[in-house]
Amino acid sequence: MTNAEIVDAAPAPAAIPVRDEDGRLTDSFLGAVEAALAAEDRDVLLALVGDLHEADVGAVIETLAEDERPAFVRLLGDAFDYTALTELDEAVRVKLLEELPTADIAAGLGELDSDDAVYILEDLDAEDQAAILGELSYSDRMQIERALDYPEESAGRRMQTDFIAVPPFWTVGQTIDHMREADDLPETFYELYVVDPGFRLIGAVALNKILRTPRGEKISAIMTETRHSVLATEDQEEVARRFERYNLVSSAVVDEADRLVGVLTVDDIVDVIQEEAEEDMRALAGVGDEEISDSVVTTARSRLTWLVVNLGTAILASLVIALFDDTIEAMVALAVLMPIVASLGGNAGMQTMTVAVRAIATQDLDARNMMRVLRREVLVGIVNGVALSILIGVVVYFWFDNPGLGMVIGSAIVVNLLFAGLCGLLIPITLDRLRVDPAIASSVFVTMVTDVVGFFAFLGIAAVWFSLPF
Amino acid sequence: MTNAEIVDAAPAPAAIPVRDEDGRLTDSFLGAVEAALAAEDRDVLLALVGDLHEADVGAVIETLAEDERPAFVRLLGDAFDYTALTELDEAVRVKLLEELPTADIAAGLGELDSDDAVYILEDLDAEDQAAILGELSYSDRMQIERALDYPEESAGRRMQTDFIAVPPFWTVGQTIDHMREADDLPETFYELYVVDPGFRLIGAVALNKILRTPRGEKISAIMTETRHSVLATEDQEEVARRFERYNLVSSAVVDEADRLVGVLTVDDIVDVIQEEAEEDMRALAGVGDEEISDSVVTTARSRLTWLVVNLGTAILASLVIALFDDTIEAMVALAVLMPIVASLGGNAGMQTMTVAVRAIATQDLDARNMMRVLRREVLVGIVNGVALSILIGVVVYFWFDNPGLGMVIGSAIVVNLLFAGLCGLLIPITLDRLRVDPAIASSVFVTMVTDVVGFFAFLGIAAVWFSLPF
Repeated sequence: MTNAEIVDAAPAPAAIPVRDEDGRLTDSFLGAVEAALAAEDRDVLLALVGDLHEADVGAVIETLAEDERPAFVRLLGDAFDYTALTELDEAVRVKLLEELPTADIAAGLGELDSDDAVYILEDLDAEDQAAILGELSYSDRMQIERALDYPEESAGRRMQTDFIAVPPFWTVGQTIDHMREADDLPETFYELYVVDPGFRLIGAVALNKILRTPRGEKISAIMTETRHSVLATEDQEEVARRFERYNLVSSAVVDEADRLVGVLTVDDIVDVIQEEAEEDMRALAGVGDEEISDSVVTTARSRLTWLVVNLGTAILASLVIALFDDTIEAMVALAVLMPIVASLGGNAGMQTMTVAVRAIATQDLDARNMMRVLRREVLVGIVNGVALSILIGVVVYFWFDNPGLGMVIGSAIVVNLLFAGLCGLLIPITLDRLRVDPAIASSVFVTMVTDVVGFFAFLGIAAVWFSLPF
Repeated sequence: MTNAEIVDAAPAPAAIPVRDEDGRLTDSFLGAVEAALAAEDRDVLLALVGDLHEADVGAVIETLAEDERPAFVRLLGDAFDYTALTELDEAVRVKLLEELPTADIAAGLGELDSDDAVYILEDLDAEDQAAILGELSYSDRMQIERALDYPEESAGRRMQTDFIAVPPFWTVGQTIDHMREADDLPETFYELYVVDPGFRLIGAVALNKILRTPRGEKISAIMTETRHSVLATEDQEEVARRFERYNLVSSAVVDEADRLVGVLTVDDIVDVIQEEAEEDMRALAGVGDEEISDSVVTTARSRLTWLVVNLGTAILASLVIALFDDTIEAMVALAVLMPIVASLGGNAGMQTMTVAVRAIATQDLDARNMMRVLRREVLVGIVNGVALSILIGVVVYFWFDNPGLGMVIGSAIVVNLLFAGLCGLLIPITLDRLRVDPAIASSVFVTMVTDVVGFFAFLGIAAVWFSLPF
């Protein structure tokens, strides 16, 4: 059911603003929705949300309390557009689907484009999936099951399987007439595809080209040969990178035999592009694909792994300090100052590494420009190291009234910032060569190096400089 | 000049693969390009790159040495598609443009869609801009100057000013005929717009709808009323969020008087969406919009600010340690172990904060679900704190043969992880309320708190437990 139909069936929506100027849902709007829900007043609820975009409906559902969500869907009944479920966090969606009758879900999914139905079904366990699929029409079921056979996060999972394919010898006129008659088309599309008798992909024609060409012209004369078609088994991140690189709005998806099996559009891919950039950030901080709606247990468990690894590297750094316990006993000021050296090194290392990890992800950093970048990082490390060591040297000189201590901490910082730059660059590059995702493991290694080098350089230089025991 | 024309004019490209299976440019291809450049053989170069997508041409230019880049553009001459410049890092683009003759640049820009021309010109200084604009045709110049009048990073800068607008009373047939005759259309478009006699935007029609509707039907019957049109002065991040939320592929851009002035398409916005997600990551690590091709001075300067702030917070943590110098002198093991407490707290804080910063950016975290999330963070902090404190407690017990020390570090870690969870959530939320970008300043504050609390809790508990002096 489209939004337009819903509007026709319902009274005009009340004039409550849905979002404020920052784009947040307004309290007055949400209050009205909750009141309608509490009163079980379907007409009012329909007037409020019937006309909303699915993204807004999704946002409304997420703000509702857990037990209000199924009530919301049930009260809207037929008028609820299941596309809104694609806008929910996974944890919220799975929980909500558990509360809804299988028959309702099947009826709702039957109305959707196949890619949206797959997106909603794929997180459910096999049993629930089978129950829902069992209630779908044969053709819908076949389409969805075929998509679910593709690996998770592959192009085959994300693609739309309704599309227009024409032979190259058709004219523009024939093609337009065919489109006017075809049904079961996706709600929007931007290209049509040209296939040979074996349904192998030959090319594509943008709709605006069809519209600008006289009816008599042959399709073969205006089509673009396919250059960047996507394999159905390909990982969605690879596909996203290609969409981004070539500014694609849609792309044909083919199987191993080069037969056209589906179409990907950029709106399915925008989320992947964003997730990919976010993934690096989360990986660096040691959080997985956690969502704000995840439970305590899920969250604690996924974060603990990282913290345990961190505990290991922290103990390693402590072992380095333990080498110098006599030095510290002889001069406690060293214990006071040593975290400064480690902290600055860790931060400088994170800076280099963040840039390196993103540059590797976007393929802006590889063997060819590595030496150039390495040279830059070494120089930046030295420049900033010297700047900071002058600053801290002066502070320490006045604080402890000890010029020697200022010199010691200054030189330790230069050494550590140099190492920070080197490791921040070389560790992600090495991990990438070893086919490990550089974002995941880099920050452990980098802070391990900057902690160990920082403590060792500072305490070691101090021991030598002041001829302290160690 | 389109790629198709180039292909007609040049010999068939040699069969060297351009990219390997990972999507990286191959060495053999780049070697061939460099050889052609060195030999100044235009035909070979054209055969190699004439048929490439602008994104690939851009990638080739970036891998070339600095002095080869202008030579590359000059050798290709008329056949060089300036769109490729939009694919370059800013530093590379500006440098390259400095080396090219103004007349060549003007001729190249004249061929481009207006948004691409603006994108290339906007980073140049006013003088160079004026020189190039002076060589453009009057209509091109007017278009570009009008776009440059909009603020940086606004929708007006990114929009395409060629588009199709029709009155609502036209029929589908009239519209199709108009499109067949119009020239100066953008290379691709996905919608056309419906305007009133004052050129005020009324609605939009997707091209696929035009194609599926009989010629006699009125445009007003099939158009969608505009719901999400973009203001030309709006910031591109706001616009990107709207594209993402509503899965838009293109959107009309209007001026203050609601008059249609341009069109934004998703391929212009995809980069913004990615940059926005990346920006948070860079902000957390204290690097600005640095690119891998930036110079040593630019890089060092932009990173130093953050390191100086970090130096300040590190000194604050040292002051806390200094409170306990007598305690440390009495038991040096405390100096050995104290970085573990601070490091675990810092990491746990970064985990919570990363999730919170992204959730705020995507508007998944606000006043309504804050209490729920806060409860979760407190519980996760306690659960993981207890798990880690048992682990480290046992390690310390065996290492120092001191059960009391194990208890002390264990309790300090529970305290610090609790604070880490609280601060990791509350600091970004507070900054957001104060209208400061939470990504920029959060990690300074969070690590400051976890360092200070970590050192204070550990050394303080130890002093009390072992009745040490402080």
